Amino acid sequence: MYTNLKVVQEQNPLVHNITNQVVTNFTANGLLAVGASPVMANAIEEVAEMASIAGAVILNIGTLTTETVDAMIEAGKAANEKDHPVILDPVGAGATSFRTAKAKQILDEVNVTVLRGNAAEIAHLTGEQWEIKGVDTRSGEGDVTQLAKKASELFGCTVVITGEVDVISNNQGTNRVMNGVPLLTKVTGSGCLLSSVIGAFAAVNNDVLETATSAISFYGIAAEKAAKLVGDRGPGSFQIEFLNQLSKITEDDEVLCKIERITK
Amino acid sequence: MYTNLKVVQEQNPLVHNITNQVVTNFTANGLLAVGASPVMANAIEEVAEMASIAGAVILNIGTLTTETVDAMIEAGKAANEKDHPVILDPVGAGATSFRTAKAKQILDEVNVTVLRGNAAEIAHLTGEQWEIKGVDTRSGEGDVTQLAKKASELFGCTVVITGEVDVISNNQGTNRVMNGVPLLTKVTGSGCLLSSVIGAFAAVNNDVLETATSAISFYGIAAEKAAKLVGDRGPGSFQIEFLNQLSKITEDDEVLCKIERITK
Amino acid sequence: MYTNLKVVQEQNPLVHNITNQVVTNFTANGLLAVGASPVMANAIEEVAEMASIAGAVILNIGTLTTETVDAMIEAGKAANEKDHPVILDPVGAGATSFRTAKAKQILDEVNVTVLRGNAAEIAHLTGEQWEIKGVDTRSGEGDVTQLAKKASELFGCTVVITGEVDVISNNQGTNRVMNGVPLLTKVTGSGCLLSSVIGAFAAVNNDVLETATSAISFYGIAAEKAAKLVGDRGPGSFQIEFLNQLSKITEDDEVLCKIERITK
Repeated sequence: MYTNLKVVQEQNPLVHNITNQVVTNFTANGLLAVGASPVMANAIEEVAEMASIAGAVILNIGTLTTETVDAMIEAGKAANEKDHPVILDPVGAGATSFRTAKAKQILDEVNVTVLRGNAAEIAHLTGEQWEIKGVDTRSGEGDVTQLAKKASELFGCTVVITGEVDVISNNQGTNRVMNGVPLLTKVTGSGCLLSSVIGAFAAVNNDVLETATSAISFYGIAAEKAAKLVGDRGPGSFQIEFLNQLSKITEDDEVLCKIERITK
Repeated sequence: MYTNLKVVQEQNPLVHNITNQVVTNFTANGLLAVGASPVMANAIEEVAEMASIAGAVILNIGTLTTETVDAMIEAGKAANEKDHPVILDPVGAGATSFRTAKAKQILDEVNVTVLRGNAAEIAHLTGEQWEIKGVDTRSGEGDVTQLAKKASELFGCTVVITGEVDVISNNQGTNRVMNGVPLLTKVTGSGCLLSSVIGAFAAVNNDVLETATSAISFYGIAAEKAAKLVGDRGPGSFQIEFLNQLSKITEDDEVLCKIERITK
Repeated sequence: MYTNLKVVQEQNPLVHNITNQVVTNFTANGLLAVGASPVMANAIEEVAEMASIAGAVILNIGTLTTETVDAMIEAGKAANEKDHPVILDPVGAGATSFRTAKAKQILDEVNVTVLRGNAAEIAHLTGEQWEIKGVDTRSGEGDVTQLAKKASELFGCTVVITGEVDVISNNQGTNRVMNGVPLLTKVTGSGCLLSSVIGAFAAVNNDVLETATSAISFYGIAAEKAAKLVGDRGPGSFQIEFLNQLSKITEDDEVLCKIERITK
């Protein structure tokens, strides 16, 4: 895990985010804490050029409009041409038909490298029924590992489903990560930032299964360390300490990784 | 007060915010701290569907555009059809003629449940003169309680005017809340978040006068507790501790309520 | 330095920001901490009216669109008519041709009072080559003081280039400020907020060279004090403490100013 993080810190990849209005600041500060270099650019006139110089492109539909989705597709195609990874975060897919349709349109028109969502969002994109309410979701009853595998086959990309256990699956294999704390669900944009951090890791490492697993484990460990320090002070303090801890992972934290590798 | 908060925490209502770009993150984290489930969605293509599944809809014109106001009206009408509460926060009404006109248009086309603003904003909407500068305002000379009553009659909804003393008025009666601290004015979006919190309370309780009063008193108490803990550390620390305290109100805090009920 | 800050705190100038989606909240809270009164308004229908009542207008192209740049130009022209200062922050100029072109368009159509950027952004606008990556930048090899002087002559305005050393130059002279800490680069929007703070200072003092120098030195001192208090806790804690310290500068901090005045 630490090796992957170290490469991010050394190479300081530019991560181009087309993301929602709620999480812009938290995403930028989180990427800086990790050692990446964030940029946000949404205008159709410049997204292709920005995506071309970025190491990874993040497409997040949390507060989508028709215009921003058009920009996302333009940016995604530009990244595809350069073989730069594209991360899609289909926030709230299934909550409205517009979101579901637009997420599918992006999946159709862009070669997405990593699709990251919660179980309900991914299920809705695969056509399965899952309980969903707004952009949050209960963990649901289904088998998340099976869902990740199925979605990965269906969309031909790496699929990450986050929840109590995080599952990463592609045609190379499937990993499960058991790091993280429930307090993360009390910080808006913690899933969105994770998508961007996965992008930062994928920008500097072509082995997507491996590097996404590292990013997710590292992210969960930072949350665990923050939760321990913050105790019961509350979600405000946790959010700030989490940003601190994202910048403080060392080689010694490697032992905290809880990764389960499932033979294909 | 605590009973109303407890219902929010138990029912975890989905609160649909069409709000300004400044306060999105703070609003979402504040709603999570209170126990509600925030969603932001502005696209005209989906606002009606999102508003239909939400327990309350918040319309905040802080960084309005013609497009977002169109979306607000669409969302408001969808909420009206489902009898879900609609909260209007007319940020900066009176500062420009565009804001005043758009706030009035929303009041005309949507059945607003709660109109919450400072004295200057509400005065401008009722046609009275009041000192206003940008989106902030001095408390002014007028009688805020009379203004709230007048606005409530004029618009046929519950009116909340916040300031040193908060006034809540509708055709059931008028309450005054004396909780809160001046430091709240140093945190951008503290009024906007309050509008959203009132929405969360109104989503789970039809007695709007009662539940809005509870929400406002609870909000002020959280600020008082935060201010006490933070001392003179400054507005940054206060903002974070306030988020902490929003998640930590217990039954024991009931004694801190400073509510004055004015017989009609 | 303190005198200039004190005037801001006493006069509480309204600062109208048309800025990027990443920094809205941090900018508003930072301006409140300094003692100014922030407002954000982007709609073409109201920007001229808002700019007319504001003490200063900040134009920041961090997440520009064609529409927001049109609004910036409208707001800038309205401020020009009232002789109110206009601050331009050309975030990422040089990163894409769209940004460079739009920044130049604003410089062409609006009488900009202060142009503030990093060395790469300013160099790109003057037509010089400079290393740039996304919206961040390495300090580069060139002579920043010469660059500031050249840009000031070219654009006929005060130019501020921030970096390890900050340079302020106009036809009255050139100052260098050596306050600040590297941790500021780990807080997204620290440059953007500085532009807005310079606007708050310029709103209440016509001597732009002097007041911008004060604003920049004061800003750096707040960062130094925050860094000392935070130690190695991390960028999350630093961001919050920085907001605290922006509200806590006193006359005693005057001795911390590191300003070098270069005779013209």
